[in-house]
Amino acid sequence: MDGADYGVLAAAWAGTAAASLSSDTAFVQSMLDVEAAWVQVQAEAGLCSAEDAQAVDQVASVERYDLRLLASRTPDGANALIPLLGMMRELLAHDNAPASASTALHRGATSQDIIDTALMLVLAKTVAQTQADLRSTADGLAGLAQAHRQTLCIARSLTQHALPTTFGWKAASWLSAVLDAEKQLETASLQLRLQWGGAVGTLASLEQFLADKKSAETSSRQLSSRLAERLGLQDPVAPWHTNRMPILQLGSALGAVIAALGTFGADVLTASRPEVGELSEQREAGKGGSSAMPQKQNPVRSVLLRNAAFASPGLLSTLFTAAGTAVDERPDGGWHAEWSALRELARLAVGAAFHGSFLANGLNVNLEAIGRNLALGGDAVLSERLASVLAPLVPGGKPAIQALVRHSLNEDASLFELLRKEIPEEDLSDDALRELFDPAGYLGAADRFTETILAEYSARKELWQSQN
Amino acid sequence: MDGADYGVLAAAWAGTAAASLSSDTAFVQSMLDVEAAWVQVQAEAGLCSAEDAQAVDQVASVERYDLRLLASRTPDGANALIPLLGMMRELLAHDNAPASASTALHRGATSQDIIDTALMLVLAKTVAQTQADLRSTADGLAGLAQAHRQTLCIARSLTQHALPTTFGWKAASWLSAVLDAEKQLETASLQLRLQWGGAVGTLASLEQFLADKKSAETSSRQLSSRLAERLGLQDPVAPWHTNRMPILQLGSALGAVIAALGTFGADVLTASRPEVGELSEQREAGKGGSSAMPQKQNPVRSVLLRNAAFASPGLLSTLFTAAGTAVDERPDGGWHAEWSALRELARLAVGAAFHGSFLANGLNVNLEAIGRNLALGGDAVLSERLASVLAPLVPGGKPAIQALVRHSLNEDASLFELLRKEIPEEDLSDDALRELFDPAGYLGAADRFTETILAEYSARKELWQSQN
Amino acid sequence: MDGADYGVLAAAWAGTAAASLSSDTAFVQSMLDVEAAWVQVQAEAGLCSAEDAQAVDQVASVERYDLRLLASRTPDGANALIPLLGMMRELLAHDNAPASASTALHRGATSQDIIDTALMLVLAKTVAQTQADLRSTADGLAGLAQAHRQTLCIARSLTQHALPTTFGWKAASWLSAVLDAEKQLETASLQLRLQWGGAVGTLASLEQFLADKKSAETSSRQLSSRLAERLGLQDPVAPWHTNRMPILQLGSALGAVIAALGTFGADVLTASRPEVGELSEQREAGKGGSSAMPQKQNPVRSVLLRNAAFASPGLLSTLFTAAGTAVDERPDGGWHAEWSALRELARLAVGAAFHGSFLANGLNVNLEAIGRNLALGGDAVLSERLASVLAPLVPGGKPAIQALVRHSLNEDASLFELLRKEIPEEDLSDDALRELFDPAGYLGAADRFTETILAEYSARKELWQSQN
Amino acid sequence: MDGADYGVLAAAWAGTAAASLSSDTAFVQSMLDVEAAWVQVQAEAGLCSAEDAQAVDQVASVERYDLRLLASRTPDGANALIPLLGMMRELLAHDNAPASASTALHRGATSQDIIDTALMLVLAKTVAQTQADLRSTADGLAGLAQAHRQTLCIARSLTQHALPTTFGWKAASWLSAVLDAEKQLETASLQLRLQWGGAVGTLASLEQFLADKKSAETSSRQLSSRLAERLGLQDPVAPWHTNRMPILQLGSALGAVIAALGTFGADVLTASRPEVGELSEQREAGKGGSSAMPQKQNPVRSVLLRNAAFASPGLLSTLFTAAGTAVDERPDGGWHAEWSALRELARLAVGAAFHGSFLANGLNVNLEAIGRNLALGGDAVLSERLASVLAPLVPGGKPAIQALVRHSLNEDASLFELLRKEIPEEDLSDDALRELFDPAGYLGAADRFTETILAEYSARKELWQSQN
Repeated sequence: MDGADYGVLAAAWAGTAAASLSSDTAFVQSMLDVEAAWVQVQAEAGLCSAEDAQAVDQVASVERYDLRLLASRTPDGANALIPLLGMMRELLAHDNAPASASTALHRGATSQDIIDTALMLVLAKTVAQTQADLRSTADGLAGLAQAHRQTLCIARSLTQHALPTTFGWKAASWLSAVLDAEKQLETASLQLRLQWGGAVGTLASLEQFLADKKSAETSSRQLSSRLAERLGLQDPVAPWHTNRMPILQLGSALGAVIAALGTFGADVLTASRPEVGELSEQREAGKGGSSAMPQKQNPVRSVLLRNAAFASPGLLSTLFTAAGTAVDERPDGGWHAEWSALRELARLAVGAAFHGSFLANGLNVNLEAIGRNLALGGDAVLSERLASVLAPLVPGGKPAIQALVRHSLNEDASLFELLRKEIPEEDLSDDALRELFDPAGYLGAADRFTETILAEYSARKELWQSQN
Repeated sequence: MDGADYGVLAAAWAGTAAASLSSDTAFVQSMLDVEAAWVQVQAEAGLCSAEDAQAVDQVASVERYDLRLLASRTPDGANALIPLLGMMRELLAHDNAPASASTALHRGATSQDIIDTALMLVLAKTVAQTQADLRSTADGLAGLAQAHRQTLCIARSLTQHALPTTFGWKAASWLSAVLDAEKQLETASLQLRLQWGGAVGTLASLEQFLADKKSAETSSRQLSSRLAERLGLQDPVAPWHTNRMPILQLGSALGAVIAALGTFGADVLTASRPEVGELSEQREAGKGGSSAMPQKQNPVRSVLLRNAAFASPGLLSTLFTAAGTAVDERPDGGWHAEWSALRELARLAVGAAFHGSFLANGLNVNLEAIGRNLALGGDAVLSERLASVLAPLVPGGKPAIQALVRHSLNEDASLFELLRKEIPEEDLSDDALRELFDPAGYLGAADRFTETILAEYSARKELWQSQN
Repeated sequence: MDGADYGVLAAAWAGTAAASLSSDTAFVQSMLDVEAAWVQVQAEAGLCSAEDAQAVDQVASVERYDLRLLASRTPDGANALIPLLGMMRELLAHDNAPASASTALHRGATSQDIIDTALMLVLAKTVAQTQADLRSTADGLAGLAQAHRQTLCIARSLTQHALPTTFGWKAASWLSAVLDAEKQLETASLQLRLQWGGAVGTLASLEQFLADKKSAETSSRQLSSRLAERLGLQDPVAPWHTNRMPILQLGSALGAVIAALGTFGADVLTASRPEVGELSEQREAGKGGSSAMPQKQNPVRSVLLRNAAFASPGLLSTLFTAAGTAVDERPDGGWHAEWSALRELARLAVGAAFHGSFLANGLNVNLEAIGRNLALGGDAVLSERLASVLAPLVPGGKPAIQALVRHSLNEDASLFELLRKEIPEEDLSDDALRELFDPAGYLGAADRFTETILAEYSARKELWQSQN
Repeated sequence: MDGADYGVLAAAWAGTAAASLSSDTAFVQSMLDVEAAWVQVQAEAGLCSAEDAQAVDQVASVERYDLRLLASRTPDGANALIPLLGMMRELLAHDNAPASASTALHRGATSQDIIDTALMLVLAKTVAQTQADLRSTADGLAGLAQAHRQTLCIARSLTQHALPTTFGWKAASWLSAVLDAEKQLETASLQLRLQWGGAVGTLASLEQFLADKKSAETSSRQLSSRLAERLGLQDPVAPWHTNRMPILQLGSALGAVIAALGTFGADVLTASRPEVGELSEQREAGKGGSSAMPQKQNPVRSVLLRNAAFASPGLLSTLFTAAGTAVDERPDGGWHAEWSALRELARLAVGAAFHGSFLANGLNVNLEAIGRNLALGGDAVLSERLASVLAPLVPGGKPAIQALVRHSLNEDASLFELLRKEIPEEDLSDDALRELFDPAGYLGAADRFTETILAEYSARKELWQSQN
């Protein structure tokens, strides 16, 4: 039986762009891209011929490689680049490429240069995809926040009903987390750095080559810059073979994205419970249904967001352990542990952003259920307000009022009536008292906060648009 | 570009049995095996026909499925069984199977039954493979411990030279961890349980079917038992849809295996450093070499053991998070996060045991380097002994002797001479004093401990042999 | 400002026995206990005088030490035993103890011996406390399972209503996880091993002492055994300085306990939501209330169980990382990282078992809410059954019935009437059809599973009682 | 036995500023500071009297509270603020403070406001301390990098000798990680935000109060701003009760700091091994010594850095899990799990920066050992260069040269002589050939990279100085 994975056990990202952007196939293609770009940069600098570059380009197609074979050779040198390079050279020979192509190939580079850079290319694509879907998620949440600025609902703490709020502010709170994560991801994307240092981070071999090739007018500095530019990566100030901070910043930002979406999904899961019923995922043909139980509509996308939120923290911890124990000029196992963990984090982020975007842009808001739940606790939900406003008017002050609240709850008695009896009408009219029972009058700064977050979103959105 | 993985980023297990035993292909085959076994059990109980079973068997070959398509449909219901079942039914139709086959297929089961059980099948195989290689690792380590019971070497604490010990006891210490982990894994393998509960863990649908089929003489209890037996899994006392303790026990044992091998690998890495030079991995063609630097032989297998040791703790933490937050009759995301984490742990264990076995059975022990390092600290390495034995004979006791040790180190003076000056020959002869400088006389219970561990190994080994 | 912690930020275990059983004070007392027991063992073997043992005993009270000072000296040698030993010797001098007491103190031991063993003593107590409360939790859950074997309730998967079950089976499922974890903890408690190996695990210094003291009839083997017995710990076959498997087994079992209780707490949290209302924590004076909102009763104990379930996986991962990277004869940082993580895990387990026990033994079950929620989905909740039983009787079979279910849900039409129209009365009487709508008739093996778990509990309970 | 901790099991930060800056005592003082500042802000806005503020200030001293009692009450409401508030009110009564003081106290606030804000105050101090020591670490490393720009040493990959490099570039590489982490920490410190939202993040109670107090000219917006300013925290745009992104950014940055120092410590540990001997920690009285083994000097500070590097990833994973599962308007357990994890991360960062600073500023560089190790591999260390430069001159090219290298290693033959035989002197003079064997000529861009990092350090240092 062959040994391939397709995402069958990775529901959180299977079927999304993560699969094609970050598969082994995509990663090997990225390694090939780095090698080909490097020969191209050399050719442009006159360090090898255009034919060499052309020949290497010919072997830089993943289709030409047997990835099962490649994987099986990976443990020989503890990384995949070493056997890949061998295979590339075999193909060059097979293609009757000039020997100089083989010499120019991988010139002065080390396997860590290629692997780290290829991972950065995979990350660049998955980060971009994540950003796009995260921004679309923000659009959806902003729409919800705006649309529901006046939608009263119950706010809960520690699972219990507490006070009224607006559904708009709830959506704006999700939005605020998404915006924070989106900003962190953008900052982190500046860490998408080329790795270029040669065997031990000195570029000794390349510099020797340039020195011998006295005609060369190009410095190793310039060559690195051109390679970074060609690959669309940051030009690093220096190799970072054992300085794994770029990996940590990127990993942390991806983890933050997943967490921001996880908390959104967690709230939708709660609100989708039949007893709560405030929210439901958009029904889509073939999604979330149960054939045996047609009444059942699973909140699949929220489940997947939670799946991602549970899976990412452990992966992130692997990156930090690896970074904090890196030794010498190349780590002795930590580096190797980064690869899968980092890619899986990126995949989860792509998957989460994809599902989050759908969820945010198609959420059904059940106003009836929201109203019903708000009313569930009766007038007691405003007890904080009543106690605070009426304390001066009721003998015994706050404690007396709180006792009335409890009495009302236990005896199912009207809190209005109980309070009415205690407060002379000359002190407070019926209307004024009744007004205190209106949850719409006790929303505090909910709308101001919503507006603030929406303004932040708008400013951010303008920036995104200006980037395109 | 297609979306398949082959282990290119998973050096720690690529190229080992993990690839074929636990690929998506293998997992899907396991799901098919569970479904087919279930229909077979039904047929034997007269609950469906032999033709039904035969028909389902025909569609239970993973080769008949497009796993890319399957993966892409996985997020629809947040698991792969739902679309797989649809595909199975399509194939039954395509094969012109009797309608009753489709009815018998998956009768009374739920997707969690199939997925959990299929994961258990994958685990059963990977655990067995791990056990085999772990036992072979133990053989190798026991051989080293036995062979080097008299090999003196330096013991180190916090990286520094401390006292003499034997290399045999060092190997026996690795062995003791491997034996502990092996025992834990065997205990955990009793948790390889069938999952069988139907939609909500009541088997209601199956029981209804049996009740309707009044002729049925078989109880759901018996059917579950037969299914477990057929699949080679433990017969559970009850469904464990949200009791994830079996997963935790298995995951912890796999993690322990990886850790036990990790500490072995960590010691080999240190000892392989050119400056230390006490150990080296067996040279194997095509392994660990560097074409650019032929003098360099990387301790590849130890690097891979360390890779596994770094990668597993985060995965294990995911399992515990998922288990501790499971809700309702099926968890809402935690269950989904288990799959990849558990499989990856199993893969790392297979890979680590494979490389550990090679390492243990082919380790080169450089006696010259071991002797050189033991001598590196000179006589000071026995200062604990000298201070303790000679304290009564030297004016000033221990502190005075320690001062002499420091003096000897700082001035590169002979400690023997310094002590000789302080101790009258009538109190201690030259020979007796000289004898105190022999590290072979200060090994304490090292050999007793080695023997004890070896005896434990022998007893254990007898048990393994009796199991075969 | 002084630097002491009291549990103010550790709500999950503050105020429980964890505080006193595992505080720094308790740990330092344990280190003192180990040192004192060791001198006592020596005295009994005639290796030092009874006066020596008496003198050491006098300084083995934690009250005599300034723990702030001790803590501040801890980094000097990277552990607390080194400065503690210095302080002990100062106190011996202050007490005018015989010099031989100071010599007997810590004879042949190393700081790792004392620290590992003291941690084992702390663990022994916290594990015992956890076991006691876990068993009490099991008692409570068994009571619930037994009492509610006939209590119908709705079963949920992926947050959605699925099929009927019994609340008894639900409680039995919690119980099954608790029993599994309890067994694992008992097995792991066999790993509460004495650590005794001297500087590098050879007991060289002790053996030298015994050799010099030719009169000594006692072997180091016997001395270790007696020390283990005196401390109530397992007699290890050999030192385990860098074989950290005992730590992993204990940590994993503690983590399993926390997870088993976490899933119980998670379900109670859901069921405590006002909209669900099926369960509530026992009201206790001063617990869970909100002064500002008297209507609010927070499910505090469940929140604390969840707190523990979230906090433990990361700690466990630290133990595995440390174990998998242990080097030499004493690890260079990993050992040090174990201490806090292991203690915190033990504390969380004590806290979780304490709160779990209260929760299980005082849970309010709201039968009205349970009934209301079961009825919430109307007849559709039995659609699986209807489709399966009636398929042969309705033209179009299962799909037709499922369409009727959807129609009934969308149009709020009576499913009974819709089906009645399709099925001739001669095929199925009104009574027989109506019976199919009774959830009590579709519980499958729920009660059998409950009974099985309860039987397992009873057997286990007998064992517990026999142990006392 | 009382239940206090002093850091006895936390060698990585015990005895550093972490103890006093983040103890429970310090945290409770921070909660008191927030409450006092809030009444002060009210007083300044005319919302209460100066006497009220004065009275609250009188009870805002941690010395007046029994923290053991407070801790024991913490589980009652699952946080420490609730019982603290009760105690504060008792003290106000005891002090005969005006009733209005008690009313102004905690007005409109919720326990999460106080706890989150108090944690931010603790973080602000620990972050500042970390930054200071991190910058001092950078100073030390920059000094090393500058001083050793010409110090040749061997570079290693996967533990094996690879090529020459400079010790200056090695130090600059550590510096680059420290600078990256320092920048990340500074960015994250912008997340030190006030939390102010009232029971459910709407400030409803406060707004009601302001509305009733019609004379009030101050908005809740302004009041929050003034409170933030008074406490030295960022003015948040809105409450972040369930948007835990600020916690994740801070935690990630602290984790990055610990990792950057961990990799430095890991290298020092390796280089401190007696067989390597290139580096040693500054000897300090009472640190790292072993009384029994005076020859032993443990690299204690590096061990503590590694301790921190192992302990932090699990804690960070807890923060991400908690953030990704936050629900409602206050999380039901995740929030509670954050407190200890976040504080412990901060403590580890303070401890690591403290020890890192000492280490970087007092590292002994053993030039003799560095030279010896560089020479250890003989000429083979330059095989990459020789193969590359001499390939055109030797029949058989690179492979032939590599064969000579192997021959030289196996037969202990002079590589110079072997090559000399192959290359006619007219093609390459003796001098020219000999020059190729000089490691100083094969350093590539090592010095350029060192210079670049040092320039980055200088620019950064200027910024730090401008901030003071």
